[in-house]
Amino acid sequence: MGEFDLIARYFTRPAAPGGGVALGVGDDCALLAPAPGMQLAVSSDMLVEGRHFLSTVDPAALGHKALAVNLSDLAAVGAKPLAFTLALALPAVDERWLAGFARGLFALADAHGCQLAGGDTTRGPLNICITVFGEVPAGGALLRSGARAGDDVWVSGTLGDARLALEVFRGTLAVPAEVFGAARERMERPAPRVALGQALRGLASSAIDVSDGLAGDLGHVLKASGVGATLDADAAAGRIAARRAAGLDGFGADTWRSLALAGGDDYELAFTAPAPARAAVEQAGRSCGTPVTRIGRIEPAPGLRIVDAQGAPLAQRFASFDHFGTP
Amino acid sequence: MGEFDLIARYFTRPAAPGGGVALGVGDDCALLAPAPGMQLAVSSDMLVEGRHFLSTVDPAALGHKALAVNLSDLAAVGAKPLAFTLALALPAVDERWLAGFARGLFALADAHGCQLAGGDTTRGPLNICITVFGEVPAGGALLRSGARAGDDVWVSGTLGDARLALEVFRGTLAVPAEVFGAARERMERPAPRVALGQALRGLASSAIDVSDGLAGDLGHVLKASGVGATLDADAAAGRIAARRAAGLDGFGADTWRSLALAGGDDYELAFTAPAPARAAVEQAGRSCGTPVTRIGRIEPAPGLRIVDAQGAPLAQRFASFDHFGTP
Repeated sequence: MGEFDLIARYFTRPAAPGGGVALGVGDDCALLAPAPGMQLAVSSDMLVEGRHFLSTVDPAALGHKALAVNLSDLAAVGAKPLAFTLALALPAVDERWLAGFARGLFALADAHGCQLAGGDTTRGPLNICITVFGEVPAGGALLRSGARAGDDVWVSGTLGDARLALEVFRGTLAVPAEVFGAARERMERPAPRVALGQALRGLASSAIDVSDGLAGDLGHVLKASGVGATLDADAAAGRIAARRAAGLDGFGADTWRSLALAGGDDYELAFTAPAPARAAVEQAGRSCGTPVTRIGRIEPAPGLRIVDAQGAPLAQRFASFDHFGTP
Repeated sequence: MGEFDLIARYFTRPAAPGGGVALGVGDDCALLAPAPGMQLAVSSDMLVEGRHFLSTVDPAALGHKALAVNLSDLAAVGAKPLAFTLALALPAVDERWLAGFARGLFALADAHGCQLAGGDTTRGPLNICITVFGEVPAGGALLRSGARAGDDVWVSGTLGDARLALEVFRGTLAVPAEVFGAARERMERPAPRVALGQALRGLASSAIDVSDGLAGDLGHVLKASGVGATLDADAAAGRIAARRAAGLDGFGADTWRSLALAGGDDYELAFTAPAPARAAVEQAGRSCGTPVTRIGRIEPAPGLRIVDAQGAPLAQRFASFDHFGTP
């Protein structure tokens, strides 16, 4: 199958009118037309086999995840998804793989009204690069730089489950099969918090999506905002779905804390908001069906101080996962 | 070196005010703010080692080319470059390579006022995915679908030189060293016709950039426009710079025609314009310092008819280079 046949078969769909896309797949460029007064939020993520996913992954789950990690970046700035481009390097044309990948990709895209607007296909080691576009009112984006001393630190949904599944795959942790199944679903099909991100515009003072681990990602917010924070590791570790669902508690507190604070691949939102906005933040979470949990406080002194449920400092750094760092 | 240090050292530069970029590298998303009345043109290209470039390529040339092929897509729709995102998979952190790559990339970006607005870095087989953004007045983009019977077919600059260099590398053709040097420069450092694309807005009826070979790329225009064309293969082959410069003529007419019509990697513009616009098109070329050559005519009957300088039909198909086709 030629490159153009491949694009036509799997990645060209009838253009939906409007939605910010004036011209989609099939010309040298796509044309985007954000509504007047809106800015265009843009993010690119590249997924590589062996680094971001295992070769055994279900292609539909991979299609889902490749877009989900990008939608999560839109969520973090409070943008409404409009469109995306897909660049794909494939070692060979495997029609079953492509059909599955396209199915998972478009199911999530359709759920968020996000159109495929263009892209590129080539032969090469498997690599998926998606660039996503959303719109946000000019001046209304949630940025990493807005946290202020006195703000609460919040996190959405659940933490640590994706990493738990990875560690079970690696054989370093063991959990009952049904717990693993749910954790694996979180790893393979993360739910980007797109509705919550938009609901937090005007409430949150800063936001970031949790991709490399809560402690590290929150560190980017602190640095960009010129502040510090104290974080309750046990409040964060209490958000691990597998632990709550199964009443598991055999790993020891530090393992739970590590999963929650340094697990990565969560695609939740970590955000800050002034204390008077607490009720409104909780209401925003309820309106989106996404629980939000208060896990800390922004302070003037730089640095991230991690404490236990009793407020006692913890020594462990809970360093972030870094694609180029030594493990 | 960690991922974030790498981004900071090589791919973060002080934000230039304005230019359509409201927020650049360093948050979950970049924010683009096209001027009122403008649409945003978007294109993604992925470059893979062994497929799009040789492992021996100078990293500065590669940085140039990775952006050039994307700027060429903006040129084809007549858009003014604003910004780009860069996603990069690297097998290892090689600081000399990165410094060279960044130098070549930013030299071309600066020449076109195109800011790096964001991206991603990861470890993996070498892969460069750039998504580029430009602005074009709403309704003013040059599309593939606008060619009409009676229009002239034009091409910019020179054709076939990049492929000539590739064939010399492969050992299938031999040319004097100085001819090879110039052809190799065309292969490694193509000049995207950004100024010409903008100058052709309101003049050209359709346009495409020549990346896979003139015959194949023009075929996309014919299909999108529902028309056909007759193309003078010898007029196109007369645009091979190496042939003109050195007075070479030893390869035989069909080799020259193949280089010009199916060579690929030219990053020239093929475009159509109504016959009354001839003088204006030539003036647009002169104003940009880019020669333009009339090489054919759009006709109502579908299909591409390739003829020699005397108008006699040629049998050869001059099929386009296709990344997934059999060679």
